[in-house]
Amino acid sequence: MRVIKTISRLRPLIRAVAEKGMQSGLVPTMGALHEGHMSLITQCVRDTEFAMVSIFLNPLQFGPNEDLDAYPATLEQDLDACRRAGVHLVFAPTAAEMYPTQPSTAVANQKLAHDLCGRTRPGHFGGVLLVVGKLFHLLMPRVAYFGEKDFQQARLIQRMVTDLNLDVRLRVLPVVREPDGLALSSRNSYLNAAERALAPGLFKALNLGRRMIVQDKETNVSRVLAAMRGCIEETPGMVIDYLEIRGPDLAPIEHINGPVRLLGAVYVGNTRLIDNLEALP
Amino acid sequence: MRVIKTISRLRPLIRAVAEKGMQSGLVPTMGALHEGHMSLITQCVRDTEFAMVSIFLNPLQFGPNEDLDAYPATLEQDLDACRRAGVHLVFAPTAAEMYPTQPSTAVANQKLAHDLCGRTRPGHFGGVLLVVGKLFHLLMPRVAYFGEKDFQQARLIQRMVTDLNLDVRLRVLPVVREPDGLALSSRNSYLNAAERALAPGLFKALNLGRRMIVQDKETNVSRVLAAMRGCIEETPGMVIDYLEIRGPDLAPIEHINGPVRLLGAVYVGNTRLIDNLEALP
Repeated sequence: MRVIKTISRLRPLIRAVAEKGMQSGLVPTMGALHEGHMSLITQCVRDTEFAMVSIFLNPLQFGPNEDLDAYPATLEQDLDACRRAGVHLVFAPTAAEMYPTQPSTAVANQKLAHDLCGRTRPGHFGGVLLVVGKLFHLLMPRVAYFGEKDFQQARLIQRMVTDLNLDVRLRVLPVVREPDGLALSSRNSYLNAAERALAPGLFKALNLGRRMIVQDKETNVSRVLAAMRGCIEETPGMVIDYLEIRGPDLAPIEHINGPVRLLGAVYVGNTRLIDNLEALP
Repeated sequence: MRVIKTISRLRPLIRAVAEKGMQSGLVPTMGALHEGHMSLITQCVRDTEFAMVSIFLNPLQFGPNEDLDAYPATLEQDLDACRRAGVHLVFAPTAAEMYPTQPSTAVANQKLAHDLCGRTRPGHFGGVLLVVGKLFHLLMPRVAYFGEKDFQQARLIQRMVTDLNLDVRLRVLPVVREPDGLALSSRNSYLNAAERALAPGLFKALNLGRRMIVQDKETNVSRVLAAMRGCIEETPGMVIDYLEIRGPDLAPIEHINGPVRLLGAVYVGNTRLIDNLEALP
């Protein structure tokens, strides 16, 4: 496995891969790899001839009062996990390598970036699209892998790929969960034991909503949301950021008469957790 | 010479060029090719193994009251000119091919896009960066050619390439001029005989400014601008949009103590013309 930290060493290698016409795949990560990432990496190794992982804690997608400094950094373990999974190349640049100067070019989605998670994290998706655009240009994957836990992120990146004619196919893989339903996230490491016990409450609320739609054939959005909200509000120590029911493209809906996406973000103590589920009535 | 109009036919060809490791070059145009374009195309054919020209009148870089509908369309002549110049591939898509849906992803430069030409044309550079980004992704050139007449555009595209780590090198070639100094532009065809006679006035004013800086060693920006403004204002029928003296990176300057760029935009009748010159004191 090659570990590359600079763009000048990366470019000739990526060009050589392109010249061989190899099917290359990329799993972009911020490190702190968990089983959710590993499911993407395993799929990438299985699907492609040249499996790449990027490990870059992107400062531009963190707000000024967010957890950039606290975010877990576990590079040696991450490299070991990639090596064991059969990855061919890890690109792990420094922030100075990725942002030698403050970028003045922005990549933004005006419609979707200030909705849902973007309401609480206004600069977040701009930072995500910029860094994913950069990584696509640097690593030129034919396929890129994202987790469905970050559903809005995956939608925004797919939209960027389509709008900008990037020659890359996205694969969005299912959420990996703990036995009690909690979606895996690097941020779960912030939770103390009491918070960890509460954390599956978000998944439970989403599941309650899904059951109402699938089993009880409830079609009224407000009624489902009220029940989900009740489910979270009866858990002391958990505060709702948002709970929403949207169409599969994240457009707001009035009635439930087709597949929908249930999405939520909550605070457990100081930790913000997100999750989502599909419901097919 | 291959003429390709659809993305589905383009992709396999571009991948094959990449797999051969060929040095490919692109001259992005809106058609209505003149000697300015031809200087870029000739250079591209000379420099590269696979010379590409795109011909696409990009609606997104025109404002609602601008000249999209009047813009000259001369596709057959353009193709002949490309063929004679030795171009290998012309990509000439329709607007529906490039924008099957309204894009919601924007590529923007917050600092530079609302300055100079961007003051009068607020959405213009957003449209330019989006379409050039798309064309770079579609045609994947190693080198791309732009004319120095659109100096601000070239700076913005270079900034995009740097900020987004696009693997393309830009070559910006000198303005091609009529014998009386008028910079070649597809928009010169809008001028009637009387307007055409006035049009070199912009170049004359820029030249006057340059002479003051180079020969008279004038270092006061306001004094040079006042003389340039006087030169244009004494031409009835010519109205100043802007006249500016900037640093080579287009940053505003207080005193002239190094290389500067003189830039101007004027209206001659209804036609907006731009031009610029470098001055080395």
